Amino acid sequence: MTKLFVEALSRSAFAPFGEVIEADPQQTRFAVNAGTSQRFHDLARLDPGTDGRLIVSIFRAQPRNLPLSIAMLERHPKGSQAFMPLSGRPFLVVAAPPGDSIDSGRIRAFLAHGQQGINFAPGVWHHPLLALQAESDFLVIDRDDPASNCEECTLAQHLLLDTESFAGAMTC
Amino acid sequence: MTKLFVEALSRSAFAPFGEVIEADPQQTRFAVNAGTSQRFHDLARLDPGTDGRLIVSIFRAQPRNLPLSIAMLERHPKGSQAFMPLSGRPFLVVAAPPGDSIDSGRIRAFLAHGQQGINFAPGVWHHPLLALQAESDFLVIDRDDPASNCEECTLAQHLLLDTESFAGAMTC
Repeated sequence: MTKLFVEALSRSAFAPFGEVIEADPQQTRFAVNAGTSQRFHDLARLDPGTDGRLIVSIFRAQPRNLPLSIAMLERHPKGSQAFMPLSGRPFLVVAAPPGDSIDSGRIRAFLAHGQQGINFAPGVWHHPLLALQAESDFLVIDRDDPASNCEECTLAQHLLLDTESFAGAMTC
Repeated sequence: MTKLFVEALSRSAFAPFGEVIEADPQQTRFAVNAGTSQRFHDLARLDPGTDGRLIVSIFRAQPRNLPLSIAMLERHPKGSQAFMPLSGRPFLVVAAPPGDSIDSGRIRAFLAHGQQGINFAPGVWHHPLLALQAESDFLVIDRDDPASNCEECTLAQHLLLDTESFAGAMTC
């Protein structure tokens, strides 16, 4: 089975798919609340789409077993979808560029550490949530009526997440 | 100084001010992602206001020292503002109903445990973020251009958070 290398998540690496949500000192930030808080400001392009409404939900995800093979991806063409871990635990992200079909050569995998969230741009192909280690809650910001906004695509060839690269990223 | 009792945060107690964001089995939930996740769905009334845009930010808050006196509240008349803790640590919430002035007899204080967030409805008076114990990050969902959407009001009489009630709530 073809292996898929797992990269450490960063804003630049993830840029083709959306934004990383993290308290990055390189991003715009300013003091608020009489200096008691720093505001890391406007970290993702939340997009409700035409006539859509942004909602906030919590996903309680079961952890995945490793090694993990990737057999399908999904997309939400009408709006963005953001995930922020509430557990502090790392999780995996698998994504491919938007388009009517999936270019299997452009599928990429990332390991997010527990203080990083991600926002998928509308139409970006991605694997459903991949929690690790233990049951984990995520705050999710996406468009209402999710059932009408999800398309799935089975991959012609399954991909095996490269546990060797993944183990390396886990030590970051 | 007048003491302000600190209540444990619950959806019903907080209803005059907005919503509690938590994975509450009493709320709407359903399986997603082939049963690997439970979706606790649409937990707050996010409101960008007229011509507003919802944005996501991270607030990195310094912890407050106890005992704590409350000298002012603020409001955001143009949109809602949601806070979700990313640290798993408890925090304090102080709120009063919307209105041109603050009815000091209707100010209430809540202790949120570390898996509870809150969403202030537009115009609800509230104290700026009150982190406890250690520096703590919060995911914030509010309207863009926050500088044009904040009014502050100094209280005629300061209120002292009742540390005895607070200690009780901490054990919940």
